[in-house]
Amino acid sequence: MFFASDNSGPAHPEVLTALMEANQGYAMAYGADAIMDGVRTRIREIFEAPEAAVYLVATGTAANSLALATLSQPWQTIFCSPVAHIHEDECNAPEFYSGGAKLTLVPGGDRMTPEALRGAIAGEETRGVHGPQRGPVSITQVTERGGVYSIAELQALCAVAKEYGLPVHLDGARFANALVALNASPAEMTWKAGVDAVSFGGTKNGCMGVEAVIFFDPKHAWEFELRRKRGAHLFSKHRYLSAQMAAYLKDDLWLRSARQANANCARLADGLRAAGAEFLHEPQANIVFAAFPRATHRRLMAAGAVYHLWGGTLDGQDESEKLACRLVCDWSIGTEQIDRFLALL
Amino acid sequence: MFFASDNSGPAHPEVLTALMEANQGYAMAYGADAIMDGVRTRIREIFEAPEAAVYLVATGTAANSLALATLSQPWQTIFCSPVAHIHEDECNAPEFYSGGAKLTLVPGGDRMTPEALRGAIAGEETRGVHGPQRGPVSITQVTERGGVYSIAELQALCAVAKEYGLPVHLDGARFANALVALNASPAEMTWKAGVDAVSFGGTKNGCMGVEAVIFFDPKHAWEFELRRKRGAHLFSKHRYLSAQMAAYLKDDLWLRSARQANANCARLADGLRAAGAEFLHEPQANIVFAAFPRATHRRLMAAGAVYHLWGGTLDGQDESEKLACRLVCDWSIGTEQIDRFLALL
Amino acid sequence: MFFASDNSGPAHPEVLTALMEANQGYAMAYGADAIMDGVRTRIREIFEAPEAAVYLVATGTAANSLALATLSQPWQTIFCSPVAHIHEDECNAPEFYSGGAKLTLVPGGDRMTPEALRGAIAGEETRGVHGPQRGPVSITQVTERGGVYSIAELQALCAVAKEYGLPVHLDGARFANALVALNASPAEMTWKAGVDAVSFGGTKNGCMGVEAVIFFDPKHAWEFELRRKRGAHLFSKHRYLSAQMAAYLKDDLWLRSARQANANCARLADGLRAAGAEFLHEPQANIVFAAFPRATHRRLMAAGAVYHLWGGTLDGQDESEKLACRLVCDWSIGTEQIDRFLALL
Amino acid sequence: MFFASDNSGPAHPEVLTALMEANQGYAMAYGADAIMDGVRTRIREIFEAPEAAVYLVATGTAANSLALATLSQPWQTIFCSPVAHIHEDECNAPEFYSGGAKLTLVPGGDRMTPEALRGAIAGEETRGVHGPQRGPVSITQVTERGGVYSIAELQALCAVAKEYGLPVHLDGARFANALVALNASPAEMTWKAGVDAVSFGGTKNGCMGVEAVIFFDPKHAWEFELRRKRGAHLFSKHRYLSAQMAAYLKDDLWLRSARQANANCARLADGLRAAGAEFLHEPQANIVFAAFPRATHRRLMAAGAVYHLWGGTLDGQDESEKLACRLVCDWSIGTEQIDRFLALL
Repeated sequence: MFFASDNSGPAHPEVLTALMEANQGYAMAYGADAIMDGVRTRIREIFEAPEAAVYLVATGTAANSLALATLSQPWQTIFCSPVAHIHEDECNAPEFYSGGAKLTLVPGGDRMTPEALRGAIAGEETRGVHGPQRGPVSITQVTERGGVYSIAELQALCAVAKEYGLPVHLDGARFANALVALNASPAEMTWKAGVDAVSFGGTKNGCMGVEAVIFFDPKHAWEFELRRKRGAHLFSKHRYLSAQMAAYLKDDLWLRSARQANANCARLADGLRAAGAEFLHEPQANIVFAAFPRATHRRLMAAGAVYHLWGGTLDGQDESEKLACRLVCDWSIGTEQIDRFLALL
Repeated sequence: MFFASDNSGPAHPEVLTALMEANQGYAMAYGADAIMDGVRTRIREIFEAPEAAVYLVATGTAANSLALATLSQPWQTIFCSPVAHIHEDECNAPEFYSGGAKLTLVPGGDRMTPEALRGAIAGEETRGVHGPQRGPVSITQVTERGGVYSIAELQALCAVAKEYGLPVHLDGARFANALVALNASPAEMTWKAGVDAVSFGGTKNGCMGVEAVIFFDPKHAWEFELRRKRGAHLFSKHRYLSAQMAAYLKDDLWLRSARQANANCARLADGLRAAGAEFLHEPQANIVFAAFPRATHRRLMAAGAVYHLWGGTLDGQDESEKLACRLVCDWSIGTEQIDRFLALL
Repeated sequence: MFFASDNSGPAHPEVLTALMEANQGYAMAYGADAIMDGVRTRIREIFEAPEAAVYLVATGTAANSLALATLSQPWQTIFCSPVAHIHEDECNAPEFYSGGAKLTLVPGGDRMTPEALRGAIAGEETRGVHGPQRGPVSITQVTERGGVYSIAELQALCAVAKEYGLPVHLDGARFANALVALNASPAEMTWKAGVDAVSFGGTKNGCMGVEAVIFFDPKHAWEFELRRKRGAHLFSKHRYLSAQMAAYLKDDLWLRSARQANANCARLADGLRAAGAEFLHEPQANIVFAAFPRATHRRLMAAGAVYHLWGGTLDGQDESEKLACRLVCDWSIGTEQIDRFLALL
Repeated sequence: MFFASDNSGPAHPEVLTALMEANQGYAMAYGADAIMDGVRTRIREIFEAPEAAVYLVATGTAANSLALATLSQPWQTIFCSPVAHIHEDECNAPEFYSGGAKLTLVPGGDRMTPEALRGAIAGEETRGVHGPQRGPVSITQVTERGGVYSIAELQALCAVAKEYGLPVHLDGARFANALVALNASPAEMTWKAGVDAVSFGGTKNGCMGVEAVIFFDPKHAWEFELRRKRGAHLFSKHRYLSAQMAAYLKDDLWLRSARQANANCARLADGLRAAGAEFLHEPQANIVFAAFPRATHRRLMAAGAVYHLWGGTLDGQDESEKLACRLVCDWSIGTEQIDRFLALL
């Protein structure tokens, strides 16, 4: 009953098998391996973007920070949600990689609205050299609270950015979970909507540690390569990143895993709803934020359930007080685990 | 006949097996996995350093840059050899991570002498705030030209650093190859000689991608953790780094692999010597720099040998002109490959 | 009728005279001039801080950025008001000088409350290495909206910072204007209240371009000196900074000028109030934010008044619509100018 | 008898007078003052560069660092002499402003030769992303050892840079001293020879503290303005920088002062030569490096002469040992001072 995070589950056996297969003989280092050629080709096909520049790194923070640094200048500000991972969970990595750019928090929750985004951009008035200059917009899809922007919503946010000539980055740590939730194509969810660069996550969805960074305009390619190397994120034995990503994309493993994770979450959410839990956010992918009584939390944790409380603690007298928690389902959690959890509720 | 680099060979099967075993169920993320506890304990034992702070990252450049940034200030200069990997092959990563520190190149070749080091440190006169301030000394062991400092030589270099109160970093991308060449203990080659921080390489010696950073004084621990996270080098699914390092240390795989690599290199060097090749540097670990006629290079490459020429090109009329090359042996290259190469000579 | 800013008026004649006097013969460069010795001694006396480290730079942004960089680490966040000069008007200089620290905006207006500050600090939960770490608190006195914190308010803000072990920086670009408004001593408004470092402004109050940075704990001295030099803010002909500051402190010129500026502002505010203008903020020093009809603005500007509208434009049909503006009085604006302005109202 | 540096002398009375005149009434802040308009126009005329972007800062290190940061990328290396001010005397300011670029020292002394420069550039082989990328060339004119490159030499250095497509920066802290020594035009010594950006010094030649940065291609203008502001080098009361530079350019004060300084130096050098002093470098502008016996130094210093020994100390028994020193003449040192010094020799 492990619902703490989708970065705590095992890697998919197909990924491990691919690593084994890749581990034969010699391979060119630093991204010149043959497996990477296949990955690049496959991602371009999947995204219907034959010119796209495609790179691999091992962590989501590296993907986000390097992509944003490439799209921005140190004297600019990056627009994002107040709960964006790049703001709350990366220990100033975007500021570090960008050389000291600022992050402007678009008022609201995890979901930016076009109105709030426009207000934030307009609010960073161009007072000559005095204030920070307007820089990229970063959108998280699936959001940090488990929401999924519709294609129309993404289009609307990108349109605001384009009004001001600003590039758009998509933090897709859970890209596949969003895609299957929307039943859209990768192109629709990215460049066709106006996205310029994507962090395309593999780690949380069945890989060991690999994320692709995709620029639809290849003009960014060389700068990104230099930034990746300077950031110490270029792997010498790169084939092991390539092999993970190749397996992830092969036979739609990425989509199968995401569908499984989302289905697991839907099963969990249905059970929670039936048990009278309150939802803090409408679950749309593989994350649920729900509240139920302290006594129930106590019972679940005593039985071995692992997850994060959200803004409260088990300490406290009032057993009926409702405490919020975050429950994340990855592809690997079995229905029996979910059902056992629900039974304990 | 692949002698291009020790970062192009496969990972050792024991490492892959460990990954498989680690891939069971859920594990705490971000370095809190149980395997890491064992790795930390084992490294402290191996180094006879029960207080040491031990961390894992995936690339050697990350290990070096993060370690040096932790030991330095942005207004300092780092002393190293003119052919140090941190100077020549990291695309300004040390400058990036340190916030703009300088590198002062100690005159000479790959091996720093105490005299040259003292001269360089003294040369960075302390002219108040005007010049860069003296910062850490970084020593590469095995050197970039295949040399190995004796324990006495390391002690002498560290003693010079200590005269000036400067910390010492050891770039041990090929730590194990040096250790078995010296038949010394890890403690003798590091803190007993005066080293403060080590990049302890796994990648080039049979792992997929893992390096340990070790600080003998734990006062650096928390700053390093923040720097690692801010640099996007903290893995969420950290267990896969831990598992590699655990396998690497288990049953002395690291020493076995290094002995095999060095033995491979010795066999190659003996053959080259017998064939009349000239050595640019005395091979002491797993790297040979040798020169032989262009015609011989042509013949070897035509037969499938893969390696780097060093400062020349195959182009040219003079078939008897001697061209230098670098030949690196990893643990995996079989004696038959070496013998075939030598036969072609 | 120039009310655009207190950085647009002339320097005080006594400052110019001091420059003339300083311009005799040779002087040691880089801050070793004899005039600086006197400045240091005088500032320590004024602040009742015999150990304080005292430095001069030429711009307020340099003072703020260098002071904050010295008090912070790149992985921290600096707490300030959403309208703080360091956030809105320094083009990411604090982020640049700190090596990529973040700024956390304390909800509210120009005046931070202890409750809002505590909430903001508590809100940056210490989630291990994931979020930014808590860093210094920066308070602007006089605030960017013309307000003056009472000594008790400063004490309360500093107390919150101290609860969390955080250092406090005071942006005193208009330090003297606040001091005379409070009728307090420099020590009361700074270290006795809990302030660790001060940007002590001269430029806006009668100098040409000089600000002192004062650290009450001299442990910061050497790091600041290196940061100042590395930031290119150490003047070779430093005596001309020293001379300005010496004149500024001599015979209480700084207090005389501030009293004059505040008195000018009070005269203006009284007239505005009498004329029925609305105040956006209660004027407490030398800045007024007032709103009156568009037609009045049009009339004033046509007559040669110079000032900034605040969030609106002269364009528009409705002549009776009230438009806000910012009016700043420096020491030099004569009462006849103010009275002429008021007459035009 | 003050020969320590040309940054220790007084400012020229005409500069002070201009400050007085500028100190009337209100002026637009942040470089929008009317005096700056005149400065810009005049510099464009002097340099025969009607499109040039022209900016003022207060220190030479700011001019150099901001110019080089604008011409470079953080992953590049800047080519300069081993004794370049940017390398030896700016406490890593170029590294700071550039975001961590490296400096590659062209072997040799203060004067780079085209051959050595080409060797250094070629030596930074383009090994893909691994090494630093080639960046700007920085030339100091007058050199740090008092030498002056001929126009032909500058052309030859720039030609090497252009072979590799690299921009050229001229550190002209003593621009005027070089120009009058060469009897060349500013255009000949800069853009006609291939220079892209100039630090045009005023401080050492009669100003209080002002340097112009000139880009012959205005494409760099906006980036420079943002970098200047972010670096805290944009003066609010900018008119006082403008007034200094205006006075400096008016009636050829800059050339008159430089001619006087160079003539002072020639008088000093002639006397030294007559007295049998040895010259370390041929004096070509306003700096002499000479060696004479310890006893003579002792006598001179006892009589009040102020200057820097160069690589030795007065301590020592051997009174006849020759010690080197650096003697710098500014415009203000009178012939009687020089003659008194020579008489003491």
